[in-house]
Amino acid sequence: MSLPAALPEPPYYAVIFASQRNASDPAHYGEAAARMLELAARQPGFLGVDSARDTSGFGLTVSYWRDEASIAAWKRDSEHAATRERGRNAWYDAFEVRVAKVERAYGRGAAA
Amino acid sequence: MSLPAALPEPPYYAVIFASQRNASDPAHYGEAAARMLELAARQPGFLGVDSARDTSGFGLTVSYWRDEASIAAWKRDSEHAATRERGRNAWYDAFEVRVAKVERAYGRGAAA
Repeated sequence: MSLPAALPEPPYYAVIFASQRNASDPAHYGEAAARMLELAARQPGFLGVDSARDTSGFGLTVSYWRDEASIAAWKRDSEHAATRERGRNAWYDAFEVRVAKVERAYGRGAAA
Repeated sequence: MSLPAALPEPPYYAVIFASQRNASDPAHYGEAAARMLELAARQPGFLGVDSARDTSGFGLTVSYWRDEASIAAWKRDSEHAATRERGRNAWYDAFEVRVAKVERAYGRGAAA
């Protein structure tokens, strides 16, 4: 079972990444995706991430950040930038990035 | 192939719903989920939705709205409210809702 990311109280920022994977190069894609998560998690200001991809290859990854400066720094990271370009050219048929400020949140973790 | 929702220029609002499905009652759940999307799409201020659930049952649904008032009206819809309660009690082991204001967006639709 996965749980939604445990985050501090808002406000914080969300980067919503929606993408349609093509069928090409699944081994390298899987490796790169895992590496990007590992790298992101080490960035200052990274708060957490939720991700799901369905069997058609459509996926949503929402990463959470303390502030806009953290997002900008992660965007500039050189390994991230190189992998991002590769993803856009080789692995995704379509994608959309939306940057949003989370204003409120509520929910319920796993029932006891 | 699915494409990320086509939306107007920001600003607009996103409701990020992260959830872990349990294994119970898949037929009614599927019916109710489809019905909720159909109902949401008819609400004033609804702009679009992206959704993905992986094979473990973890899913993200991000619905997009013109403004906070549209989100509040949808939240008050009585059929939505009843189904939401049912979902929280019967179908989800955990969930989190995050309401965010989308400030910028960019991407690339399906390559020609």
